[in-house]
Amino acid sequence: MFFKVKTTEEVLSLVKRFSPVNEERATLAGAFGRVLSRDFISPENMPGFSRATVDGYAVRARDSFGASENMPALLEIEGEVKMGESPSITVGAGKAVRISTGGMLPQGADGVVMIEYCHLLDESTLEITKSVSPQENVIQPDDDFREGNLVLGKGRRLRAQDVGVMAGLGTAEVPVYRTPKVAIVSTGDEVIPIDRKPRRGQVRDINSYTLSAFCKHESVEPVLIGLCGDRFDDLLTMVKRGLQVADTVWVSGGSSVGTRDLTLKVLESMDDMELLVHGISISPGKPTIIARVGHKALFGLPGHVASAMVVAEIFLRPFLSCLSGEENPGKGLHHFVKARLGRNVESASGRDDFIRVRLRREKGEWVAEPIFGKSGLISTLVEADGLLRVERNTEGLYQGDTVDVMLLT
Amino acid sequence: MFFKVKTTEEVLSLVKRFSPVNEERATLAGAFGRVLSRDFISPENMPGFSRATVDGYAVRARDSFGASENMPALLEIEGEVKMGESPSITVGAGKAVRISTGGMLPQGADGVVMIEYCHLLDESTLEITKSVSPQENVIQPDDDFREGNLVLGKGRRLRAQDVGVMAGLGTAEVPVYRTPKVAIVSTGDEVIPIDRKPRRGQVRDINSYTLSAFCKHESVEPVLIGLCGDRFDDLLTMVKRGLQVADTVWVSGGSSVGTRDLTLKVLESMDDMELLVHGISISPGKPTIIARVGHKALFGLPGHVASAMVVAEIFLRPFLSCLSGEENPGKGLHHFVKARLGRNVESASGRDDFIRVRLRREKGEWVAEPIFGKSGLISTLVEADGLLRVERNTEGLYQGDTVDVMLLT
Repeated sequence: MFFKVKTTEEVLSLVKRFSPVNEERATLAGAFGRVLSRDFISPENMPGFSRATVDGYAVRARDSFGASENMPALLEIEGEVKMGESPSITVGAGKAVRISTGGMLPQGADGVVMIEYCHLLDESTLEITKSVSPQENVIQPDDDFREGNLVLGKGRRLRAQDVGVMAGLGTAEVPVYRTPKVAIVSTGDEVIPIDRKPRRGQVRDINSYTLSAFCKHESVEPVLIGLCGDRFDDLLTMVKRGLQVADTVWVSGGSSVGTRDLTLKVLESMDDMELLVHGISISPGKPTIIARVGHKALFGLPGHVASAMVVAEIFLRPFLSCLSGEENPGKGLHHFVKARLGRNVESASGRDDFIRVRLRREKGEWVAEPIFGKSGLISTLVEADGLLRVERNTEGLYQGDTVDVMLLT
Repeated sequence: MFFKVKTTEEVLSLVKRFSPVNEERATLAGAFGRVLSRDFISPENMPGFSRATVDGYAVRARDSFGASENMPALLEIEGEVKMGESPSITVGAGKAVRISTGGMLPQGADGVVMIEYCHLLDESTLEITKSVSPQENVIQPDDDFREGNLVLGKGRRLRAQDVGVMAGLGTAEVPVYRTPKVAIVSTGDEVIPIDRKPRRGQVRDINSYTLSAFCKHESVEPVLIGLCGDRFDDLLTMVKRGLQVADTVWVSGGSSVGTRDLTLKVLESMDDMELLVHGISISPGKPTIIARVGHKALFGLPGHVASAMVVAEIFLRPFLSCLSGEENPGKGLHHFVKARLGRNVESASGRDDFIRVRLRREKGEWVAEPIFGKSGLISTLVEADGLLRVERNTEGLYQGDTVDVMLLT
């Protein structure tokens, strides 16, 4: 079967086609970082009553008109609003009632004079040196949220302040998408568990640990299926187990052509399988396989961890975001930084090159320094702060160019 | 006691003086996102043997010299290197051994010809159309990490690839700082638990939930001490309990002058207390109190959650980073984005103004749109993507200015 390698954009549009996982209910205390599975509509008005936004005196605004340093207005003090209580006092003409920030505005009052502009002449006489307009320093009962209005949209990953607002509106349980599970299978006859001493020619299982940590960073749950030698039956068994227990399966490791062929053979033996991607025109990461099995996605990742991580950042991140039900995921704000390129970067045309860069601060700007090194190294990945994409229709980038650096997990 | 309000920089330098928490050991599987409490030195060479970085044939480089499309070199094939095994074959003059990516280079060979430049003429005769230099497509035993060299520095928050490298080096346990605990006390006579229906004048406890989620975002553990009315004895008891169970205590809520005075009174009644900050020249967030009690920090945060969150982003984030033992925390890369200002912003001089902004993408650039609204609102915080700092020695910023926006949690 001949399969044309796909471009970055083609692959992105394919991985974003998978549907989100099911929904469940989370307690509000456990809702931070979860993704809303339904629109959150305000169940009531907030704050629910007229509230002072400053410390001072509640007055009838018209009684303050014209008041200034030179021409203060005099008002008669009639008690105090206690925090948390609905005041029984009504503020009549020429009267003022002491109120604290957050206190409920008494009837009759329609503004609050800040304490800075208030001076007590005696126990019951207040001088004010500034006028307030109606509703000044006051929040209306539905100024924050109005009953029935949209507060937070479906597909939003909840931030601290979102959780706070839901608390304020008395929401103890939240409809969210389940946390997606990712089955990770590490393959390759040369790969051994990390607690064993490698013989010459063997390496420890870096990929399971790296991909598992990547999953945690992306707020999904890794499920380690295990290590698998380059044997058809073993890999088939592990892939099937992965499909049973998780929402997607990632087969990684085994960097040779032989292992890739094995992954393909295992896929071809499965029912309701569609091979979506067999090779991507990127470097590193070209030998990536993506298939649909039933409604789940299976990824065959390059064996070298530095290549696998490029595929993870570029394709698995948006895939997981999609699986998690995120819509407009944080606008991607936390993932990019603008920088000036520290030196020329050459690139082969016909593919997107992803160059590892180190970022340093210089004169208030970020400077991206490409990290060069042999392709099989892991140390370059540890040193890198981000990835720089050199698009396939460019021959390279020049020192001093302004570039968008994708931040590494 | 008269206390001068402090500037942003003065307060930052004070909160960064607190020492990190103690260390403990984490399993590698649980080490992602934790902070290294000691330098991590490579316990061995990595990869530990000479490795092919491509699929192809291991050869003596000099046998390939001069090979080209027009003038191929002919070599005799002598078997294959199996993955995970130390090959027993020695590559002699004029010989080639099949090898896969990651395979161990056999003795005698010092380069690998990529499979793309190899053609089998018959079972045992190989034609190569490109020469390789010595060590081409090969990683040396200590190319990635050399035994005894620094791999990851103390104070580093472990990323996915860092965990992967530790796995590769056979590290099953990692010395890390303990996860700091934050005791949260919510005060104010008007504040009620979120599962109760507020009477007029009452509000639900937004702050505990918001600050608790903020802690989770910053990878520290919130400990909810509880709600506290504006009573000296109750607040003293709760603060003491917080100091017992956590590494820092945050008293929030109670936005009135009265509550702030209460927090001060409680502090003044404590042994070994030093008031560090009583007011910061910022808006919002001015009425912030910071004290040292023993070796722990106590924060009195503004009662309004939008103000408290500004203080959290500006001061508590670096404080927690310090408490967590982070050094050079991720270079701050995930926290800022460069944007063009969408409209003029006025500002009072003498204080740093923090303006909430919404970010939108326009022609490949971020545009920061200030969000205006009454100071007591929470909805503006929910709509905001970030904060824009207008420094105290500027009168404002102009539409079109390039600004650094601090991303909101």
